[in-house]
Amino acid sequence: MIVVMKPGATKEQVAHVVDLVKDYGLKEHVIYGTDRTVVACLGDKRMVDKGAIENAPMVENVVPILAPYKIASLEVKKEKSRIEIGPGKFPIGGQKVGVIAGPCAVENLDQTLDTAQAVKEAGCVGLRGGAFKPRTSPYSFQGLGVEGLKILAKAREETGLAIVTEVIGLEQLGAVVEYADVLQIGARNMQHYPLLEAVGKTNKPVLLKRGMSASLDEFLLAAEYIINAGNSQVILCERGIRTFEKYVRNTLPLASVAALNDRTHLPVVVDPSHGTGHAKLVGPMSLAAVAAGADALIIECHIDPEHAASDGAQSITPKALKDLMPKLKRIAKAVDRDM
Amino acid sequence: MIVVMKPGATKEQVAHVVDLVKDYGLKEHVIYGTDRTVVACLGDKRMVDKGAIENAPMVENVVPILAPYKIASLEVKKEKSRIEIGPGKFPIGGQKVGVIAGPCAVENLDQTLDTAQAVKEAGCVGLRGGAFKPRTSPYSFQGLGVEGLKILAKAREETGLAIVTEVIGLEQLGAVVEYADVLQIGARNMQHYPLLEAVGKTNKPVLLKRGMSASLDEFLLAAEYIINAGNSQVILCERGIRTFEKYVRNTLPLASVAALNDRTHLPVVVDPSHGTGHAKLVGPMSLAAVAAGADALIIECHIDPEHAASDGAQSITPKALKDLMPKLKRIAKAVDRDM
Amino acid sequence: MIVVMKPGATKEQVAHVVDLVKDYGLKEHVIYGTDRTVVACLGDKRMVDKGAIENAPMVENVVPILAPYKIASLEVKKEKSRIEIGPGKFPIGGQKVGVIAGPCAVENLDQTLDTAQAVKEAGCVGLRGGAFKPRTSPYSFQGLGVEGLKILAKAREETGLAIVTEVIGLEQLGAVVEYADVLQIGARNMQHYPLLEAVGKTNKPVLLKRGMSASLDEFLLAAEYIINAGNSQVILCERGIRTFEKYVRNTLPLASVAALNDRTHLPVVVDPSHGTGHAKLVGPMSLAAVAAGADALIIECHIDPEHAASDGAQSITPKALKDLMPKLKRIAKAVDRDM
Amino acid sequence: MIVVMKPGATKEQVAHVVDLVKDYGLKEHVIYGTDRTVVACLGDKRMVDKGAIENAPMVENVVPILAPYKIASLEVKKEKSRIEIGPGKFPIGGQKVGVIAGPCAVENLDQTLDTAQAVKEAGCVGLRGGAFKPRTSPYSFQGLGVEGLKILAKAREETGLAIVTEVIGLEQLGAVVEYADVLQIGARNMQHYPLLEAVGKTNKPVLLKRGMSASLDEFLLAAEYIINAGNSQVILCERGIRTFEKYVRNTLPLASVAALNDRTHLPVVVDPSHGTGHAKLVGPMSLAAVAAGADALIIECHIDPEHAASDGAQSITPKALKDLMPKLKRIAKAVDRDM
Repeated sequence: MIVVMKPGATKEQVAHVVDLVKDYGLKEHVIYGTDRTVVACLGDKRMVDKGAIENAPMVENVVPILAPYKIASLEVKKEKSRIEIGPGKFPIGGQKVGVIAGPCAVENLDQTLDTAQAVKEAGCVGLRGGAFKPRTSPYSFQGLGVEGLKILAKAREETGLAIVTEVIGLEQLGAVVEYADVLQIGARNMQHYPLLEAVGKTNKPVLLKRGMSASLDEFLLAAEYIINAGNSQVILCERGIRTFEKYVRNTLPLASVAALNDRTHLPVVVDPSHGTGHAKLVGPMSLAAVAAGADALIIECHIDPEHAASDGAQSITPKALKDLMPKLKRIAKAVDRDM
Repeated sequence: MIVVMKPGATKEQVAHVVDLVKDYGLKEHVIYGTDRTVVACLGDKRMVDKGAIENAPMVENVVPILAPYKIASLEVKKEKSRIEIGPGKFPIGGQKVGVIAGPCAVENLDQTLDTAQAVKEAGCVGLRGGAFKPRTSPYSFQGLGVEGLKILAKAREETGLAIVTEVIGLEQLGAVVEYADVLQIGARNMQHYPLLEAVGKTNKPVLLKRGMSASLDEFLLAAEYIINAGNSQVILCERGIRTFEKYVRNTLPLASVAALNDRTHLPVVVDPSHGTGHAKLVGPMSLAAVAAGADALIIECHIDPEHAASDGAQSITPKALKDLMPKLKRIAKAVDRDM
Repeated sequence: MIVVMKPGATKEQVAHVVDLVKDYGLKEHVIYGTDRTVVACLGDKRMVDKGAIENAPMVENVVPILAPYKIASLEVKKEKSRIEIGPGKFPIGGQKVGVIAGPCAVENLDQTLDTAQAVKEAGCVGLRGGAFKPRTSPYSFQGLGVEGLKILAKAREETGLAIVTEVIGLEQLGAVVEYADVLQIGARNMQHYPLLEAVGKTNKPVLLKRGMSASLDEFLLAAEYIINAGNSQVILCERGIRTFEKYVRNTLPLASVAALNDRTHLPVVVDPSHGTGHAKLVGPMSLAAVAAGADALIIECHIDPEHAASDGAQSITPKALKDLMPKLKRIAKAVDRDM
Repeated sequence: MIVVMKPGATKEQVAHVVDLVKDYGLKEHVIYGTDRTVVACLGDKRMVDKGAIENAPMVENVVPILAPYKIASLEVKKEKSRIEIGPGKFPIGGQKVGVIAGPCAVENLDQTLDTAQAVKEAGCVGLRGGAFKPRTSPYSFQGLGVEGLKILAKAREETGLAIVTEVIGLEQLGAVVEYADVLQIGARNMQHYPLLEAVGKTNKPVLLKRGMSASLDEFLLAAEYIINAGNSQVILCERGIRTFEKYVRNTLPLASVAALNDRTHLPVVVDPSHGTGHAKLVGPMSLAAVAAGADALIIECHIDPEHAASDGAQSITPKALKDLMPKLKRIAKAVDRDM
């Protein structure tokens, strides 16, 4: 942390800042420049709220130097984590790029089994599907609940696919852990800390979606909550951020994939469905995501998107998924991955 | 809802869309324009996922017409709701502009009582303070928990101030309801629907903070979750949004106050502390918020901001608060309000 | 500037960075911390592209310390600049808050004179109106050109109002300088540097609008271009930024007014019309802007907004302007200003 | 365009809107719904400012239906435009993906020729390099001007590469046209309409960069200015947008490539250098851009990035470029393109 003093700060004012720095358990190092005096603070142990020093007289600003996360960092663990999911123990973060697909919501048994079959045949490794749905409107379909979980388990039984499904609260956690292979934390819950800690106490892999306005630091700190609670099987998922753009539901910033690969050992998955909001953009962005270094994709696929109970506009058909897979494979090869 | 067809859409393709519209229980009205055919859909009951129609062949886009919220709307209730808080039953949403102030976190008994005394003397109507803290980093101070709630209750006893404190999960809800006068839902939890429904089943007023990237529609739908669950005592709180700006922690868009006043009967409170992130910007934005039509302010105030356990950079001192109050009163008068 | 090395950087790698720092004419100061080595660079002369050092091996990032602007800064000139405009020599930046109003575009003589008369009667000090219009679409009304300038001059003659009008290119600069009292640089041209330099060589006050995605640093650097070219009569204008919000044309971040007052001696004007895009939001945001510390307002006013050639949705009527003025005066008084 | 009336609008108020619609030369079509009356307006000729109708009594909002651009649209021309550049007449928009590379700024003859040689050997088709530099700070290196253009021409002579260089104002246009093969319009000038019209009157291809907060509609309307002035050789360039993200200089939204391919016949180029701001992110995003469907890339490459006069942090070395090219070729093949 660097404290920058305003020009004209007196010796006493600098001394006052030095005292504050010591109060916070840090060692100070004062540098007298031509325009500014600067107090470098050593020994930062990532305790975060020293911005309070900004309130001291004649302090111009306080600049953090260290990244705030630790155990999610590449500094602590150099090699990429491989996280095995489902009956097939497919390793997310390994040499192979995996594709997880399925409907936004589990609507009924037939829809789910038919989709699962198509997803399996296309060569995917996991089935996604919501049993508990966090919906923006209280008047929207809220999911089948435990009944939906049972349908997903049935689909796993028939296909061997890993089941990825969202947990939206502590109340449902037990049920979701019982049936699911991967616990999804949705974008809206990325900073719901009690839930992060709770999934951190389970032994199931967690797919953590980036909040729609979360910085990478905040995203990695959310992962850190889970790891810190005891569960290191965290899979990061970029699903797009909210910007001024209107032709998409979210802006999908694929540079985050490369930037995360440069900061953390955790695998990175991309969701091109929420990341764009339109079925016709899903294909190109899936290809781009793999080219950018994604370890896996999670794609919304529905047997009848025009009648989907939710997210119809961004769901692709089983046929579109089947056509996409060989192209993805070629891209994976081009970046020295397999599929 | 309006479905816009691409140029060149055939009769059959338009008919297919009409069928879909009927499937959704709506009545269609087809308009043949010079460049486009458009299908207007009547009888919209705010069921939301008809964007699925976007997936039909030759559909260009689907434009919603109705606002998705209902019971939070001015259409349903014309006069502003007045929500009484605390022992003094101060009505938020009435003629008087109220100020709620206090520390980010309850740190200990003395700090809280001293602050409460100062807040009371300055003329405020409520005391804010977190007992359960949702913190971005797992290594930050997480609050005193129930002990903190008891300290707040003690402060109420001594000052008569209404206690506003955050609830971060269902687990703590019972305890918070027992001690607090107003249940705060933080920005990060604005779309934590199980929590919204749970506070909707209590009889305590709820201060609902806008998520940092929530649209006004999403904000009002979150309020609608609470009202729909049975609790109409919802106070909206604008606390700033995330944008590209870097000189502030958040961008505080005060036009939302006027826009909300034009859409909903719910009272609107502004938080200039989170809304800016810097103590020196709190004063001007407090004045601006009241000028823009805010019903109340919620301000972070700490007896020693340089040593605050959290949010020190944006906390003002009791003296700064005391100096601000008469200015606020003059602004309130200027817009025909009292204080 | 602070160069942060990655953990594990060798002595040679630090020495290489020190060499680079010297190449840039700076003096280095190396600090060995517990987690990181940091190279503080002294003597920064605001030359900007030293981010190149980021490319050196094992450099984690490069943190600037100094603000990049200089002559626009409060450090150089402590007291607020007062910039006199028009025949009445009204000082923008003085004790009095001024209001400038008028149509988006000069459409014809009658419309302009009628509006000017109304604007004058309401108590405004300036008339705004575009003769050259930068329009998003090539098919929109592009302004009357020199004819429009003459109409504005006529309006000044009749009312004594200062004429504020936009210059969109070097080609028209001579004509605009001949007729206008204040040269407006539009948001889209904030970084059109040849134009900034050209208005910097005139002796007319310049109203510089903030670009819709400009940071405060970029905004002040644009002002610095003008001052650096010889013209210190720069008036800054906040007109809203582009964010994810959809209920407004732009998000109007009034904290920028206070933040600019804390950084620069240049006066700050607010444009609540472009800042919101809707006539009904103009009143509340005008009041809020003055409460936040704005030195003046610039408001779009049209005698028949429903038929305006441009910006009709955000133009208020002469009656609305007249009703707004006494409220603005009360707010101005409340913050110890006059009107 | 659809005008949505508020609930409770009277017959007279609807009739008033119908009159306004007719005033604008449109035909009205009134639909009486259960909650709202809606006035659909037929015959829209893309005149834009009918938002003015929003000001009429009891109008809730005005929803545009047609895209505002026309001649840039796929509706007008179905097949992708192929725009040939430089001595080699390489067709941008054809089967082959082209790479243009070079320094941010032309610094001197040797640097430019050495870079050009390396760029040529790597297999690129164009050399980029700025002779006139629009710089955020007036204290930064502003380019060599005409001398720089001559150096670029020399580099073309030696290598046969097409020269892509920026024009920042009408004053320099003649010189740039004389020496350059492609006229670049920078992001800051995307809405500098006099410049757009001026390059529209030349016969040189124009590389138009997206403004950092431009919507796709605004981007295509800027292209429309150029085409409308007579020059249809417009190449669109996505170079990233400004968002809340801080680990990048800009957020590179590759879905825009697919979305533009779905809207316009103009070729689309991606700039991963400005699009990320960091050399290490350039490779992954170059691969992703080609996977997403880009017709070409424009990459900053410097022989000594640590000493670059500008944009050093985001420039890759000739070696990095050479290593990247075969990977790009494999991605191109994977999406059925050549290189």
